[in-house]
Amino acid sequence: MGQDDAVEFARLLKAVADPTRLRLVSLVAANVSNEACVCDLTEPVGLGQPTVSHHLKILVDAGVLDREKRGVWSYYSIKASTLEKLAAFLSPA
Amino acid sequence: MGQDDAVEFARLLKAVADPTRLRLVSLVAANVSNEACVCDLTEPVGLGQPTVSHHLKILVDAGVLDREKRGVWSYYSIKASTLEKLAAFLSPA
Repeated sequence: MGQDDAVEFARLLKAVADPTRLRLVSLVAANVSNEACVCDLTEPVGLGQPTVSHHLKILVDAGVLDREKRGVWSYYSIKASTLEKLAAFLSPA
Repeated sequence: MGQDDAVEFARLLKAVADPTRLRLVSLVAANVSNEACVCDLTEPVGLGQPTVSHHLKILVDAGVLDREKRGVWSYYSIKASTLEKLAAFLSPA
């Protein structure tokens, strides 16, 4: 692994290395429709909408989640390519 | 994922969310003998032994690497159970 790849991976891992963000990723992944809006997520994590939106933004910026705006709400889904890349790196060869 | 699991995973991810530590994990994993001592790692990452030892200690404390002392040197290997747990979590269900 070269220095550039390592910097990119570290940035990604930092984004998910937070208990609330891990729970958000896990909740989005567990949703039957494979997506969730902020309105679905505030109650399970026990945090207000501004805080949840802030964490979701960090995950979108890092390429962990995709965001799609439909009407009033934004819908978040797992960006599978990113997580597969991470999982592949972490799996012992 | 409950709050306790999330806290434990976040701690693990934080340990590997650093470019130098990612490269060290990758170098240990890539070694033919599946282990490496500090003496094998300083040159590829371009850092001195005290710095490399510091990063290795963080990885051992977080359960990412195992350390075995043999004679003068400590030998580091990937703690497969930890990385498998991470990879399983990150793989889309």
